[in-house]
Amino acid sequence: MNSFVIRGVKFFQPDGSVGTGNICVDGDKISAITRGNVEGTNVIDGRGMFATPGLVNAHTHASMTLLRSFSDDKSLMDWLQKDIWPIEDKMTRRDIYWGAMLAAAEMIRGGTTAFADMYGPCMDEVAKVVDESGLRGSLCRGIIAFADGDGKLADNAELYKNFHGAADGRITVMFGPHAIYTCPPDFLRKVADTASKLGAEIHIHMNETITEIEDCLKAHGKRPFEVVEETGLFDCGTLAAHCVHLSDAEIEIIRRKKIRVAHNPGSNMKLASGIAPVTKLLTVGVTVALGTDGASSNNNLDMPEEVRLAALLAKVATLNPLAVPAAQALQMATDFGARALNLNGVGRLEVGAKADIVLWNMRGVDWQPTFNPVSLLVYSASSAAADTVIVNGKILMRNRQLLTLDEEKIIAEFNACAARLTGKSAAVSD
Amino acid sequence: MNSFVIRGVKFFQPDGSVGTGNICVDGDKISAITRGNVEGTNVIDGRGMFATPGLVNAHTHASMTLLRSFSDDKSLMDWLQKDIWPIEDKMTRRDIYWGAMLAAAEMIRGGTTAFADMYGPCMDEVAKVVDESGLRGSLCRGIIAFADGDGKLADNAELYKNFHGAADGRITVMFGPHAIYTCPPDFLRKVADTASKLGAEIHIHMNETITEIEDCLKAHGKRPFEVVEETGLFDCGTLAAHCVHLSDAEIEIIRRKKIRVAHNPGSNMKLASGIAPVTKLLTVGVTVALGTDGASSNNNLDMPEEVRLAALLAKVATLNPLAVPAAQALQMATDFGARALNLNGVGRLEVGAKADIVLWNMRGVDWQPTFNPVSLLVYSASSAAADTVIVNGKILMRNRQLLTLDEEKIIAEFNACAARLTGKSAAVSD
Repeated sequence: MNSFVIRGVKFFQPDGSVGTGNICVDGDKISAITRGNVEGTNVIDGRGMFATPGLVNAHTHASMTLLRSFSDDKSLMDWLQKDIWPIEDKMTRRDIYWGAMLAAAEMIRGGTTAFADMYGPCMDEVAKVVDESGLRGSLCRGIIAFADGDGKLADNAELYKNFHGAADGRITVMFGPHAIYTCPPDFLRKVADTASKLGAEIHIHMNETITEIEDCLKAHGKRPFEVVEETGLFDCGTLAAHCVHLSDAEIEIIRRKKIRVAHNPGSNMKLASGIAPVTKLLTVGVTVALGTDGASSNNNLDMPEEVRLAALLAKVATLNPLAVPAAQALQMATDFGARALNLNGVGRLEVGAKADIVLWNMRGVDWQPTFNPVSLLVYSASSAAADTVIVNGKILMRNRQLLTLDEEKIIAEFNACAARLTGKSAAVSD
Repeated sequence: MNSFVIRGVKFFQPDGSVGTGNICVDGDKISAITRGNVEGTNVIDGRGMFATPGLVNAHTHASMTLLRSFSDDKSLMDWLQKDIWPIEDKMTRRDIYWGAMLAAAEMIRGGTTAFADMYGPCMDEVAKVVDESGLRGSLCRGIIAFADGDGKLADNAELYKNFHGAADGRITVMFGPHAIYTCPPDFLRKVADTASKLGAEIHIHMNETITEIEDCLKAHGKRPFEVVEETGLFDCGTLAAHCVHLSDAEIEIIRRKKIRVAHNPGSNMKLASGIAPVTKLLTVGVTVALGTDGASSNNNLDMPEEVRLAALLAKVATLNPLAVPAAQALQMATDFGARALNLNGVGRLEVGAKADIVLWNMRGVDWQPTFNPVSLLVYSASSAAADTVIVNGKILMRNRQLLTLDEEKIIAEFNACAARLTGKSAAVSD
């Protein structure tokens, strides 16, 4: 059983303030937080480090790392229909695995300890990556119902039965109906029915673009949240990604149905989708978490960057410099992220919580002067400051060395997949 | 004399495309770009690297690093009047020096090779930092005319006479009337007169906040660019920082007077100032460069981050995913940055240009697959990928080791200054 102490570390407390102490880890949990001297061999020196809960990437498509920088600066439909979908159609089981493997390495390097993933077939390969990497993953089979919706729904149910609670509870499974514009209401009813019978929750894209809203109004005479509410889908417990364009009535549905929102500022900016009303949602008590979206629309899986973007974008969108202050932005990526993924006992550094901890190295020039570690992490530092990453009490990275993954091999296999899929040179050495 | 070759490197060409070749440096210049094999001892292996011109930080207040994370998430006037100005009043010559020294280390680490700096007294200390660090600096004495405007103007003239063209031309000097709300029109006339007699250019804050515009309309019945144009200041050649809120008539003044704009997306977002009409300015042919602003309103001097923010913010502000594509964003931070600072022969990787070059390491996970280095640098990578930094043919950083600066000493001296100024613990070890 893992048992170690992080000595003399400054840490982010659940209330947003900064404490100092020794964080004791026993097994998969934080067993105590103490003051004073600590001796012994199983000691990690936390001086010069800032400990936060592991960051939670509440919405991504991990294997899309394979398409990073393949197609940028295009209109949404050109990008999706001409460049992305044709390649995705060619993806094999092996591609899904190595794409997610590279994503896992990238996420650990940036201090991410849990992620919510939605992608196509072979999500069991992503489950394997979660198992092997040591991360937490909330997985769902992305279901586009145009072709063989029922088969995909059965796929998702199978994924749930095989993997929900697997890998010491690090893997959980949701249902992934893609969106209102790819799943008609009748199909969403079927998803709701299947998921609720299993006690599973839902991960869905909602209200990402203006076009999506307009099309929904044309087709159904109502806005997306209104249409989907009537299907009963939200009764399952829902993680809704994007939520960029919302009416007041839809915000009320989100609040009433306790829907957790995954805000993706980087992707929403890059694809020019719009700016989500984050401060409005937070004000009425909605759990707003943060996600990167896939690496072909972001173009990375860098959660510290999303934390900063969330804080900056909210300020400029409302012309209020007090909107989403640093501590709140960090809570969105930790405590709120864990709630968004329905992970109990995760997202807070407190006794009894799961030991999902990141140590950020405060010795770099961009951390000087060290007046306020929370402010520094959110507004100045980069993911390169992630020094040590711990999940479920297990150390996945130490001094920026990955301990569970063979990075060199991953990059080689990954680039071979990317080159084969696209017919383009993908590796640095090519 | 420096003489070396960067072998087999992919590089960013002036037209925005990517070439491959050997970049030959002789003295302070790129003497040739060749193809084929290169032998010899003075060879830097450029394989696995992406070479770009050095990034130009077109607007900052370097010594304000001392106040990083000292006061965040406040309203603009609370921040400035209660927290920032009282500390700035206490700054000594030594503070200015060590503040700028830390800034220099931070800028080199992020691939910045030139910066435009505006700050208070003792700008000769910043000149010393430019000299010692090996960077390029365009310096000006920030002049707030409320108290002793004439003395400060004389200061700026002295700075010009002593330092313009110094350090092998790496130091240049402009005049720094702070803004229309701190320098009345009559005083701006005096600045224009003094600067034009010396042949010096102007660096000024313009149209940063809505309040500034409203106050100007109240006081003068005209908008800031209209008022300042009448003083003749713009006839000197002008670098105007921010330019967030602009009327069409003001955009026409900017175009007509060939004013170069320093866009500061990070600072404008954090202070909730607003979103500058970058695409409009670029469309009419204005040189829009990028800047970080000071580290107490950003909160870092990370130019790759500003490049990304400029590209992302323009897209979401116009709801057009084609706005400010990757290559244009990178040009804004290189070629346009050099033009903004009026640096001849800088900002482009071509034969005869100054050897200001950054090598970005493409081996990290966030650079895979390496389909498009420009896109990867702008949308995915971080400043931590800056591996080698060359200015005027001299290597300032190699394998992320600073060669001209003693980083450990800088951090210690810097934090001692920050602690003394604020009365707060500033160093990680405190």
